[in-house]
Amino acid sequence: MSDPKKTSVLVVGGGSVGAIAALNLEVGGLASVTVVLRSNYNKVKETGYDIQSCDHGEVKAWRPTSVRNQVPNITEEGADPYDFIVLTTKNIPDVGPTVAELIAPALDKENAHTTIVLIQNGLNIEKPLIEAYPKATILSGVSLIGSAEPQPGVIVQDDKDRLLIGPFDTPNIHASFAEAKAKEFVKIYGAGGKTDCKYSPDVSHDRWRKLVYNACLNPICAITGLDTGRIRLADGAVEGLVKPAMREIVVAAKAVGVELAKDVMETMIEVDPLDLYLSPSMLADVRKGNYIEFENLLGEPLREGKKAGVPMPTLEVLYQIARALQWRTKESRGLVDIPAKRT
Amino acid sequence: MSDPKKTSVLVVGGGSVGAIAALNLEVGGLASVTVVLRSNYNKVKETGYDIQSCDHGEVKAWRPTSVRNQVPNITEEGADPYDFIVLTTKNIPDVGPTVAELIAPALDKENAHTTIVLIQNGLNIEKPLIEAYPKATILSGVSLIGSAEPQPGVIVQDDKDRLLIGPFDTPNIHASFAEAKAKEFVKIYGAGGKTDCKYSPDVSHDRWRKLVYNACLNPICAITGLDTGRIRLADGAVEGLVKPAMREIVVAAKAVGVELAKDVMETMIEVDPLDLYLSPSMLADVRKGNYIEFENLLGEPLREGKKAGVPMPTLEVLYQIARALQWRTKESRGLVDIPAKRT
Repeated sequence: MSDPKKTSVLVVGGGSVGAIAALNLEVGGLASVTVVLRSNYNKVKETGYDIQSCDHGEVKAWRPTSVRNQVPNITEEGADPYDFIVLTTKNIPDVGPTVAELIAPALDKENAHTTIVLIQNGLNIEKPLIEAYPKATILSGVSLIGSAEPQPGVIVQDDKDRLLIGPFDTPNIHASFAEAKAKEFVKIYGAGGKTDCKYSPDVSHDRWRKLVYNACLNPICAITGLDTGRIRLADGAVEGLVKPAMREIVVAAKAVGVELAKDVMETMIEVDPLDLYLSPSMLADVRKGNYIEFENLLGEPLREGKKAGVPMPTLEVLYQIARALQWRTKESRGLVDIPAKRT
Repeated sequence: MSDPKKTSVLVVGGGSVGAIAALNLEVGGLASVTVVLRSNYNKVKETGYDIQSCDHGEVKAWRPTSVRNQVPNITEEGADPYDFIVLTTKNIPDVGPTVAELIAPALDKENAHTTIVLIQNGLNIEKPLIEAYPKATILSGVSLIGSAEPQPGVIVQDDKDRLLIGPFDTPNIHASFAEAKAKEFVKIYGAGGKTDCKYSPDVSHDRWRKLVYNACLNPICAITGLDTGRIRLADGAVEGLVKPAMREIVVAAKAVGVELAKDVMETMIEVDPLDLYLSPSMLADVRKGNYIEFENLLGEPLREGKKAGVPMPTLEVLYQIARALQWRTKESRGLVDIPAKRT
């Protein structure tokens, strides 16, 4: 059970990112963590996580304070609201359930207490939460981590955890209050000293910067079926496809007031070592037959850029193709009607 | 052997299109046809084609006058040049061999005799031939046919053969001579009365018209993995992807002097019945791990449009993605070097 002297944190999504987040929060000794699991629940409940981590070393049979197989209903359980709810699931609003729906049982009616931390990619992900929970403090987590879950409950973290935490701009929360909450979370998360978690006030900058990778390389790899090593080898793909897409993101960012570093495109093109052949999340998801996070990673920056008057022809086509790939996954799961074949 | 009173025709490529072309040429009684085969050579040599055709009915164990397993070397064989060489192979200049190289052994040095008929898709396909054989008459064949080869030498033609023949614009051949050759070919090809083969003087129009399908729907299906029935069902794909691409082709055609019919986009979107779920050639090729004809079908109209000052943002992205798919096929065939994975 939770220790009342510690900060209570609910981590929703205990996969490769969530498990490391939970571990960091617990090893600092300031938080008591409940993790909500799905596919790996039985394994973690019974024998804990087996974690091999460049930050933490070998951690066998590790369990957070509590594991759950669904988001706790605090009203039914008569439990206190959590201090923080950290979301580390994929965020796929076009397929649902939405993040707002997902965490609803863990929030009290007013929700003046719980701070929501979105360690998720993309743009405008706070907006549906502001609408659903206008009194909630909502923090942005931009994570750069190399972590995978090759088997349920087995986590291999081969690239260090770098987490930027800052307050989303929310209409009903004082900036100073949100800033304090962000700094509090950074302190709790980094207390174990094994991770690089920083307070970063410029959430828009951090998110647009990561979009240079996530709105461009990520869908391009998913669409072409080539990993980031191969896309750099393929005939003309960097000059003809990756850079034009990235340029549109850089211009769109500028149009909404975010100035990215001059070398951001080169940095992002080379962020994965050429000889590692890494599959970005959307490519990995397409290969597994999973849904892709294309609306937040590609659709939202596209819409923001167009709204700001920026021509986005490359991203527009990538978006439409990604949408067709998502439809294909829906079909494979029996979610669309295909008229019978004429005989 | 060839009948000297008949027109001698060499058909290069005896697959689903070439077999029906050979059949049409032979049933008219005016041509003696040699077909060059590759993968189905043994089957056709031994037991002939088995053809089930909406135009010809059931044709069992049919053989053209002659079958060969490579393009005949007329100089070595001391043979007369063919009157016509008809190309029904795929045309993939970025992978090679080129069509000009392929037919070289069947042409005499001067090549003032043989007329070359390209029953192949795309734009500018005559240009490498004009360069290689400046004295050759070169005809365009734009074929609308539904035909497949489910097993080697087994041809199922389920949509009628409509072939438009006209002279390519070549610098060294009198237009009236080329026109006469085109009309001669139409007569020979249609003499059996089982096919709809027409003389069509406006080759550019016929080719740009077919590009509305082939530069747009064809690569879009290949890239998204959706057939033409599904692409019409998928969320927003027609409005967001197919039509913008087609509009660029229509505008590019106009810019180079080709006025397409007002309803050409709708016609091409609906040319395949919705309940047939047809895979256009590039999708079929991607699924089989074959190379795609993206340079002639997509690259050439893109380059022509851009040269004429037409913005082609959608086709540009489709082209770059198709190029990456081609590279992926090259990799799968061991034709590109992938640096070793870091251990």
